[in-house]
Amino acid sequence: MTTEHAEIRAFVAEHTEEFLADLASWLRIPSIGTDPAHADDVRRSAEWLADRLRAVGFPLVEIWPTAGQPAVYAEWLARPAAPTVLVYGHHDVQPVDPLGEWISPPFEPVVVDSEFGPRLLGRGAIDDKGQVAFHLLGLSAHLAVTGAAAPAVNLKFLIEGEEESGSPHFGDLLRANRDRLACDVVIVSDTGIYSRELPSICIGMRGMVKGEFELRGADVDLHSGSFGGSVPNPAHVLARIVTALHDDDEHVTIPGFYDGVREPDATERELLDHLPFDEAEYLATSTAKALAGEMGWSTLERTGMRPTAEINGMTSGYTGAGHKTIVPSTASAKFSFRLVPDQPIEGVMSAFRSWLTAQIPPGISVSLDFIGPGVRPFLTPLGDPMLQAVVRAMAAVFDREVLFTREGGSGPEADLAEVLDAPLIFLGFGLPDDRIHAPNEKADVPLLLKGAEAVALLWSDLGSGR
Amino acid sequence: MTTEHAEIRAFVAEHTEEFLADLASWLRIPSIGTDPAHADDVRRSAEWLADRLRAVGFPLVEIWPTAGQPAVYAEWLARPAAPTVLVYGHHDVQPVDPLGEWISPPFEPVVVDSEFGPRLLGRGAIDDKGQVAFHLLGLSAHLAVTGAAAPAVNLKFLIEGEEESGSPHFGDLLRANRDRLACDVVIVSDTGIYSRELPSICIGMRGMVKGEFELRGADVDLHSGSFGGSVPNPAHVLARIVTALHDDDEHVTIPGFYDGVREPDATERELLDHLPFDEAEYLATSTAKALAGEMGWSTLERTGMRPTAEINGMTSGYTGAGHKTIVPSTASAKFSFRLVPDQPIEGVMSAFRSWLTAQIPPGISVSLDFIGPGVRPFLTPLGDPMLQAVVRAMAAVFDREVLFTREGGSGPEADLAEVLDAPLIFLGFGLPDDRIHAPNEKADVPLLLKGAEAVALLWSDLGSGR
Repeated sequence: MTTEHAEIRAFVAEHTEEFLADLASWLRIPSIGTDPAHADDVRRSAEWLADRLRAVGFPLVEIWPTAGQPAVYAEWLARPAAPTVLVYGHHDVQPVDPLGEWISPPFEPVVVDSEFGPRLLGRGAIDDKGQVAFHLLGLSAHLAVTGAAAPAVNLKFLIEGEEESGSPHFGDLLRANRDRLACDVVIVSDTGIYSRELPSICIGMRGMVKGEFELRGADVDLHSGSFGGSVPNPAHVLARIVTALHDDDEHVTIPGFYDGVREPDATERELLDHLPFDEAEYLATSTAKALAGEMGWSTLERTGMRPTAEINGMTSGYTGAGHKTIVPSTASAKFSFRLVPDQPIEGVMSAFRSWLTAQIPPGISVSLDFIGPGVRPFLTPLGDPMLQAVVRAMAAVFDREVLFTREGGSGPEADLAEVLDAPLIFLGFGLPDDRIHAPNEKADVPLLLKGAEAVALLWSDLGSGR
Repeated sequence: MTTEHAEIRAFVAEHTEEFLADLASWLRIPSIGTDPAHADDVRRSAEWLADRLRAVGFPLVEIWPTAGQPAVYAEWLARPAAPTVLVYGHHDVQPVDPLGEWISPPFEPVVVDSEFGPRLLGRGAIDDKGQVAFHLLGLSAHLAVTGAAAPAVNLKFLIEGEEESGSPHFGDLLRANRDRLACDVVIVSDTGIYSRELPSICIGMRGMVKGEFELRGADVDLHSGSFGGSVPNPAHVLARIVTALHDDDEHVTIPGFYDGVREPDATERELLDHLPFDEAEYLATSTAKALAGEMGWSTLERTGMRPTAEINGMTSGYTGAGHKTIVPSTASAKFSFRLVPDQPIEGVMSAFRSWLTAQIPPGISVSLDFIGPGVRPFLTPLGDPMLQAVVRAMAAVFDREVLFTREGGSGPEADLAEVLDAPLIFLGFGLPDDRIHAPNEKADVPLLLKGAEAVALLWSDLGSGR
């Protein structure tokens, strides 16, 4: 450990109590962004953060209104020769239902002990107020230890208020402020590591195209005695379409679906398969009863590197109690495709539309709607120098090799990287057992402190011109 | 036309006004058997009918209570040498929703003129009070014209009160009274003819097995980002099962499903295909946009002679507004099989159970429930002498050749024939445009009068020992 690192760690340890008290005061603000009744709380949460950013030393702090909930923007640009870093996070939190399952009230944060050290319990503890807060602590440590009047890099913070609502106005906000947000790297602190023992950096997320389609036969449900077996049944047609989506090896059959898919090289597959995978634990966590998926790929590869086509819901005919002997007039399905680099969103949409249209038999009509513009897949190149700096900081903090993960899910991060035309790196300190979006969300305090250490080290490293 | 026939027709004409007034007083009783709020009305309806049966001359009339709604039983056994006929009908009626679509109140019957003569409008006009009522008029005509103190055959009337509820207690009632109900033929007056110009007798109805099954994967819906493509998706499995139910020629693939199917001979197919079939009209009536079905069979054969497997409803995952990107934990389907002679109900059930179980992949569990005991398929042999007598009466009344139809639907009639061990013949005078079960149900008055004529002729014919 370097002297600087030891001093950072000491600073963080000395200020832990103050850090937790401060974070707790933020967590007490119920900034549920999806609930209009909490609009005032989201505004208060933004103001709380703006105050703290000023207190740490940011010379410019603004609250940016949107058509929905406000974002907080701060900048501290004192190093013309150093890189500019944009830190992304969010200050809105998930709803708290079912309230009865919380062991303590969601907006009355408490610290409890565990075999892994103290834990902070409360809505937003890790998603994402705790992670924004460790940035403040880390910056204070960086300033104290370097003794400089300003951070070693140029910093911009953009902490939005609608992440849990699907960031409906975030793209507009980015595009409207593209020049002010210009940066050399985006650091996203809203994710986690593989496990307490295995620090990791997520280098990929899947993109997504989602939508629904409806098949229609007769104008009304028909008596299955009079018409069963003599006119097309939309439920049967839907089943055939859903079945035809995959071949026997679970490859997606849509012509053109795999166009653009960047085949991972041996190193990339090896890096992913280097992660420990415990089938029994995976099944226990998921409550699924068996593994399944595309032939020729491991489970981590299936969710991390491969595109998928999933039915998320379907319905046809009578589904209530009892029975109706009808030939349903309609059948519909909701679907989502997870995309990997470099599948183009528009290309997947048009490939699916063409394929679906070709599946429709005489007597059945179809309507297809995509929901939203789609989410781009995202991948940080392993050789990116900014990524290497983050790896060094993580490795130093954990004193371990850093692994690389790929998330199966999708987020707005690819848009951030695209609009700002900068590499994007995930620096998150959550854990799989943090119960985000669920009752009893928690953060492991030692990991929040490691987050503060990591960013204090990172700003020095990036500012050193190394 | 025979003298007797002319006298019958004259009697019926003379008594038409009285007949309609009498029937209207019955239709004013809202005997909706499925609605507990109308239990008193169903009882009043039974009492109304019992009174009228006594008035026509039946020496023995009883109201038979059941665990549900009461049936009415009457007998007039005065001809030890003549056959005994049991007449089946029902006095309960369908609910009347949506009430707003009725052009006059459903339980305030009115007679309106049309190009086809007067029509009686009201709930139960044809299904089935009008058809029970023409039996009373026909019996009066028979007695008046023959001048006899009793009908030429032994008559038993059994008019149930739960037909529109699916006859839940009718089987028990039949079995409990099997000896008293013993007869040589069952006449069912609860159906119709092919069209005004084409008198017909339904000689077959399909049987039915129905039920539902549920597939289960994980205990809960899973995030499709984290688990899409790595665990089995019950919606996909359901689609595959539904698809696998039929081959490319729309034959049902379940091994053993066709066991026992009596292949129709050339005469039977010819008789059915003798019926005029207008594809455009069929599509317009059904509102379906195309014909479809089992290769090698015409539309009338597909619904009349061939068994089917239909999905009546299915559901999986999220089906509300918007979208949830989940791997559903469950998927379920409601299905019905229409059966033809001599497919055994139990055989079809066990064939389906075996087949379904064999379709289930690892990680998915299935539960299967059949609803009800199933309905037997039914077919009157063309050579049956009782059928020939009914054909003679119908042909005389319409002065036309009588055609033979087969209904695609299913009813409790096969049970009647089975329990009473007697041939069963449909003698119904409804029309396809009578709007049974729908708003503005009506009966063509000239057809109700033809019904009365037909039964008056039939009792003489059967009583003559011809």
